[in-house]
Amino acid sequence: MKLGIDIMGGDYAPNIPLEGTIMALEHLPKDVDVVLFGHKEQIESYLNNKNIHDNRISIVHAPEVIEMHETPASAFSQKINSSITVGFQHLKADNIQAFASAGSTGAMMVGAMHVIKSIEGVIRPCISSLIPRPDGKFSIIADIGLNPDCKPDVLYQYAIIASKYAQFVLGIKQPRVALLNIGSEPEKGNLLAKAAFELMKDSNDFNFVGNIEGYDIFKDKTDVIICDGFVGNIILKMGEGFYSMLKKRNLTDDFIQKINPEIYGGTPVLGVNKTIIIGHGASTAVAIMNMILHMHKVVHAELVEKLKNAF
Amino acid sequence: MKLGIDIMGGDYAPNIPLEGTIMALEHLPKDVDVVLFGHKEQIESYLNNKNIHDNRISIVHAPEVIEMHETPASAFSQKINSSITVGFQHLKADNIQAFASAGSTGAMMVGAMHVIKSIEGVIRPCISSLIPRPDGKFSIIADIGLNPDCKPDVLYQYAIIASKYAQFVLGIKQPRVALLNIGSEPEKGNLLAKAAFELMKDSNDFNFVGNIEGYDIFKDKTDVIICDGFVGNIILKMGEGFYSMLKKRNLTDDFIQKINPEIYGGTPVLGVNKTIIIGHGASTAVAIMNMILHMHKVVHAELVEKLKNAF
Repeated sequence: MKLGIDIMGGDYAPNIPLEGTIMALEHLPKDVDVVLFGHKEQIESYLNNKNIHDNRISIVHAPEVIEMHETPASAFSQKINSSITVGFQHLKADNIQAFASAGSTGAMMVGAMHVIKSIEGVIRPCISSLIPRPDGKFSIIADIGLNPDCKPDVLYQYAIIASKYAQFVLGIKQPRVALLNIGSEPEKGNLLAKAAFELMKDSNDFNFVGNIEGYDIFKDKTDVIICDGFVGNIILKMGEGFYSMLKKRNLTDDFIQKINPEIYGGTPVLGVNKTIIIGHGASTAVAIMNMILHMHKVVHAELVEKLKNAF
Repeated sequence: MKLGIDIMGGDYAPNIPLEGTIMALEHLPKDVDVVLFGHKEQIESYLNNKNIHDNRISIVHAPEVIEMHETPASAFSQKINSSITVGFQHLKADNIQAFASAGSTGAMMVGAMHVIKSIEGVIRPCISSLIPRPDGKFSIIADIGLNPDCKPDVLYQYAIIASKYAQFVLGIKQPRVALLNIGSEPEKGNLLAKAAFELMKDSNDFNFVGNIEGYDIFKDKTDVIICDGFVGNIILKMGEGFYSMLKKRNLTDDFIQKINPEIYGGTPVLGVNKTIIIGHGASTAVAIMNMILHMHKVVHAELVEKLKNAF
């Protein structure tokens, strides 16, 4: 297995992505190689300085950087030597089995949607996030911002996609799937939630357990939380805001630490033909390491193949 | 001024509403009377037992209770001796200037919408909540659940309504009004947020400061947060969930205490022709007291008159 990593992406590139990659290699199985996309000399000089000689590492020279302020679509197509553009070419050619970056989210989405494309039958891909629970486990929430205006059938598909993720990546046998809503009763909600409930209630595609409300988000009530990208994005960021507020006020413990968005180091794009992970721009080396280990887990679980079979 | 209070509403009626009312009377100005709607003998026996003889208290006998499980509209019209139904008759007849209850939210909404009705020109009333900020002040958020499917012009009106609340009840001179969205740039959002932004951006009706994101909710970035009732309800309940989680984990301080939904003791229904406050079913005596003091503040600010002038 070959995992592609963008070394030029993120606020602290190239050193932090390199440091995170080296850390990840200590945890990855011996038969997993990493392919680094970035400025070759810079990477080599970093590795030589650290006296790192690992034959699992190879480098693809891609010195350009798509900056955060650039228009993603035009930067992606014009900067043909950028780490992200080159990374996607290698992903499409199957030289690597997955690609991760803490760089421009917009450019990553251009690559995901226009180079790798949706799995046949998937109306709209989504992005997701893991939500920690006090019972030590995680729920997955989708969508968290890719698709702010969803139709009910799109939410239905998100339930299939996120349920497969929970099953094969998180290892939950029959993941409970819930719709995020403003009441527990079936008739509650906005037009979208009501229609989605109707579609989901008798589903054989996943284990639907009904509506959950805002106070249930961090509880052991469900394994999968489905909502549109507008709601998902706002609550995810509200959680991040809460985390920083608590940190600032020194109100933290082991569980609160897990809400730290940086420790997951990556959001998988789900419903596309390859494994793609988008990291936080402010990723630390630990976040980069976790992003790479997460990517390995998703590839190892053969999630993309499982999703192709499901549609 | 006469304030109407439902003594039969809430999980701990009638004792807790009575206890909260007595507490409130200690803080209310001497020229403010309270009219208690409930079982007359029960109320009198409670007051006699506590040896309370206050000529600011009067009682309207209304012994029936609209229970939480009842269909609000039919219970409201059939239980003509219920504290809520009788309370609304007195409110409509101007025997009282405001009415508050910790009982059936649905029945309170029936009264607000069908007996008291919207202010002329207001397309849809809303309900709101106060959000504490670390700077010691509060932001107001609307809508928090009355209207889960909003049109852009409805959000625009919520901005007017909540801005007046912030100005006259919270005492903020030129309240900053923000749209809750998934990015700070004008072009961000779902279809509703984009259209609402276009309507709000050049408004002379309020001081629009642009979009805020989920992590800004508990910050000093705005005084008024506008969103549809679906989003508002979910984030409000997520905040409540966070509060109970922190309490359970003993991670609390003065500020976190303020997130406790019970201490506000009431959500005003805004955009209707009278002052109506809906309390939490689980209200404690302190919550009831705060609900009554809040009601007094809204009446004293002449918010309803200010809103009538604005539309």
